[in-house]
Amino acid sequence: MSELFERHRVLLERAVQATQERTYWSAFSEVPSGKIYGESAKADAAAAFDSRLGKPFNLPDHPAEAPIGNEVSPYGFRLGITYPSASINTLVNASKAASKAWAEVEPEARVGSCLEALVRLNNRSFEIANAVMHTSGQAFAMAFQAGGPHAQERGLESVAYAYAEMKKVPSKAIWSKPQGKGEPIVLEKHWRIIPKGISVVIGCNTFPTWNSYPGLFASLACGNTVIVKPHPSAILPLAMTVDIVRQVLAEQGLPPDAILLGPDTAGSEITRDLLSHRDVAIIDYTGSTSFGEWIKNNTQGDVYTEEAGINSVVIGSTENFAGMCDNLAFSLSLYSGQMCTSPQNIFIPSKGIETNEGAKTFNEVANGIASAVDRLLADPARAAGVCGAIANPATLERVDSGRTLGRLIRDSSAVEGQGDARTATPLIVAVEPDASDTYGEERFGPISFVIPVDDVRDGIDRATALASKKGAITAALYSTNVDDIDFAANRFARAGVNLSVNLTGGIFVNQSAAFSDFHVTGGNPAGNASLTDAAFVANRFHVAMWRKPFQEAAE
Amino acid sequence: MSELFERHRVLLERAVQATQERTYWSAFSEVPSGKIYGESAKADAAAAFDSRLGKPFNLPDHPAEAPIGNEVSPYGFRLGITYPSASINTLVNASKAASKAWAEVEPEARVGSCLEALVRLNNRSFEIANAVMHTSGQAFAMAFQAGGPHAQERGLESVAYAYAEMKKVPSKAIWSKPQGKGEPIVLEKHWRIIPKGISVVIGCNTFPTWNSYPGLFASLACGNTVIVKPHPSAILPLAMTVDIVRQVLAEQGLPPDAILLGPDTAGSEITRDLLSHRDVAIIDYTGSTSFGEWIKNNTQGDVYTEEAGINSVVIGSTENFAGMCDNLAFSLSLYSGQMCTSPQNIFIPSKGIETNEGAKTFNEVANGIASAVDRLLADPARAAGVCGAIANPATLERVDSGRTLGRLIRDSSAVEGQGDARTATPLIVAVEPDASDTYGEERFGPISFVIPVDDVRDGIDRATALASKKGAITAALYSTNVDDIDFAANRFARAGVNLSVNLTGGIFVNQSAAFSDFHVTGGNPAGNASLTDAAFVANRFHVAMWRKPFQEAAE
Repeated sequence: MSELFERHRVLLERAVQATQERTYWSAFSEVPSGKIYGESAKADAAAAFDSRLGKPFNLPDHPAEAPIGNEVSPYGFRLGITYPSASINTLVNASKAASKAWAEVEPEARVGSCLEALVRLNNRSFEIANAVMHTSGQAFAMAFQAGGPHAQERGLESVAYAYAEMKKVPSKAIWSKPQGKGEPIVLEKHWRIIPKGISVVIGCNTFPTWNSYPGLFASLACGNTVIVKPHPSAILPLAMTVDIVRQVLAEQGLPPDAILLGPDTAGSEITRDLLSHRDVAIIDYTGSTSFGEWIKNNTQGDVYTEEAGINSVVIGSTENFAGMCDNLAFSLSLYSGQMCTSPQNIFIPSKGIETNEGAKTFNEVANGIASAVDRLLADPARAAGVCGAIANPATLERVDSGRTLGRLIRDSSAVEGQGDARTATPLIVAVEPDASDTYGEERFGPISFVIPVDDVRDGIDRATALASKKGAITAALYSTNVDDIDFAANRFARAGVNLSVNLTGGIFVNQSAAFSDFHVTGGNPAGNASLTDAAFVANRFHVAMWRKPFQEAAE
Repeated sequence: MSELFERHRVLLERAVQATQERTYWSAFSEVPSGKIYGESAKADAAAAFDSRLGKPFNLPDHPAEAPIGNEVSPYGFRLGITYPSASINTLVNASKAASKAWAEVEPEARVGSCLEALVRLNNRSFEIANAVMHTSGQAFAMAFQAGGPHAQERGLESVAYAYAEMKKVPSKAIWSKPQGKGEPIVLEKHWRIIPKGISVVIGCNTFPTWNSYPGLFASLACGNTVIVKPHPSAILPLAMTVDIVRQVLAEQGLPPDAILLGPDTAGSEITRDLLSHRDVAIIDYTGSTSFGEWIKNNTQGDVYTEEAGINSVVIGSTENFAGMCDNLAFSLSLYSGQMCTSPQNIFIPSKGIETNEGAKTFNEVANGIASAVDRLLADPARAAGVCGAIANPATLERVDSGRTLGRLIRDSSAVEGQGDARTATPLIVAVEPDASDTYGEERFGPISFVIPVDDVRDGIDRATALASKKGAITAALYSTNVDDIDFAANRFARAGVNLSVNLTGGIFVNQSAAFSDFHVTGGNPAGNASLTDAAFVANRFHVAMWRKPFQEAAE
């Protein structure tokens, strides 16, 4: 049995238990504290990050034909880091060369290596945070949490599922079939896990680690070799990840090329050619719906996607108007609406709602949310910590053109005192319910719409119809009416949307916790897979058997 | 809780246990005995079958726009049965109309209905046997076993997997996240199973029930509605199945249209149009590789396939030459080689093999198998019982043209005394190892090749290379050498082929037992799915959540 597996066995078993119970459990602290991660961890990580800038990234023994890389921090400076790149044939051949040894080692050795890599990644969370911050634009605290421990937990979760699925198949059984009064027919049967082949993980710009780790670690654990193709603007976090996994493998005498980095640059993406290669058996993809469609129509492998979606809030009534407005303000502002879980459309009854503060008109509700955003972001330091920076310049252009889409409720502005950083606070625009050309498209970034509807059920109908047609990952409902909550729970479930009801305080519709919340249902166009359920891992391997007549003396 | 679920709970729980242990377990007796199925069961079933001939098949309340059906028994008579058919739009609309009620009932009610239907099918095994015999051409005893209890067990197995996968997701959990010294954040979370949509099951001619039940019952259990599209030559067994399931649903107040029959006739198949419908979310397919490719490239749904393959036997040495020859003779003769698990290619070292009867030359081995076939089929009644009839006239033509493909080792002939039945005993032809154009294609039916190779490992290499390229479901090895067995186990596993070693006596490479043998690995072109593993069911449903702040008083 693998030594690394034994070392992390308790962690793994606890993780498996957590996936079954789905109550709260955390493997890695989300608190960016020196008490937990080491007193000098933050300073050391900043220094380590700085020391990488302007230099080639060293991936020992990795195929390297040309150094490439062109990352620019959304905070306003070039990283200047280059990464070893190689042709697709070189990468695929290296991956295939590593595949036999990686496939034939016992599952525990692979799982043990994955767990060790995750623990090492956790120890490097501060450094990962710097890398995620300066590629995605997330503020430091969020980059630490979402890019570090939360991503690692999503990885651990997928390893737990992979392990549980593999262990469901016994390695051996004695099959004894009665033959009436005759001697039974007795066979011994042996089963083994056989991987599917090369697994390609396509990273995204905004959550380079969080969205990549589940597919990456599930595929590795099941014996597939992995090629990681980061977004050209967010290579560093995944290069560090690949480096750490390769170190573990090398130390274990396992083939480091079981995981490879396939970096590229904007305008010269290798994605289509890589995914079209006939040896690619599994594809994990996070990104646009249009490219997701291309993948499904033009590649051979199994495809697991998270694509675009349009998330909605429906407001019917509340017993905590201020708490609701504050909660939604945070959801709209967090990472400037660049989360796949951020709300875009807020449906409010045109005749207003009942609240603990008395009846509120449509405009009072809309302005209540806008004012809460203003309050939340009044302090520039807090605003910077909540909003972070804008990953992609196109998002700023989208905000600009968004101003004229309807009646301005709250204008977007840069975050004060952020120098060269690309920033934007939430834009809120009121549009009519028939303007579905406007609010019926994903407008990624800090752009949201308040939309008057007949009543809460009309809002639920519109939100779920849109989800079924265009995809949605999250939804929020505010209602004091039990029947309406029940109605919404049914409707959003049928539309494949995870629903949060009456959230106030320190928990938000955008948040999805590993070991409890399944992220994306797979039940609408926002994605065909869920992080992480059994379906996400069970088809990443096959099972082969050999059987022979059982002989008592044998073995 | 569903009454039917409670009635069959013990059966279900035992089945779930069996899928985990994979030792021998049987739910339904494979013995076609009046003591088990009722003294008059055989005669009653024959009468019931006869009474259906030449009449419309009654499916109460089923959409019916035109009666169609053109089945001819391979034993030489027209069934003359017509079935209610309807346009694809009518079928899809009826399926969708049933979907909401079927999706929203608790999983236990669906599972209970599936179990009740399987038990009723079991009670009707003699009647099913007649239907399978006179559509597939299987001999009665095989039609009883494979079409009846074995198929029902494959269905039960898939229901067990579906139930286990659905129950892995708790319906509720309390999530309590600590907040340092503050009060924890506490949410209650509710999960529910949401089906994927319409599931289409494409039946095949040779195993209309065995190959259809896993997808059919897994999809139903997970809340999908099912449209069964039988092979135009083998409608009756699936019409009976649909009828029985619909009866159960109607009795339970559930929508019978959750399962529909989509019959067609040869030359006017509805398959492409049906599968191309955008509401079809799941496709289970058994059939040719070329049509399997069409499905994968032209439909939107998830596709589970069993396609063509070329199964091999590799002979290296044996301690029981007569037993080996007898065993292979039965495997070649059973249902005249029309099983997806029947061997086609037999690789024998050109310099011969060591046996308990001393050294045997290549020709002695080849002739030993041929003679064993002759012995097995010498008695016409036994020959008829082993070989059955040929499902498709094209198979007879293939046998005819097969005679000239090489050196004739054993000629095929009709089975004596079978009147108008379409029969053929095994054809065995010797070809050279470079004749891979000949033995490297699937030649479905009682056609096999003996091929001289350098040694056992050369045979294993050729068999596994062919399996990786063209697909294979089973392989057999005869060897007294432990290293060669180990070598073969590794190679065939990597090629995704289930391997049987040194089988003699009453167990055969063709046989695949529910609850123990996974049928098809998914790891080569012979199919992308396995009957039945977790991957076969886990993606037939999604999970949706709603969550809200937990209040002690609530509920």
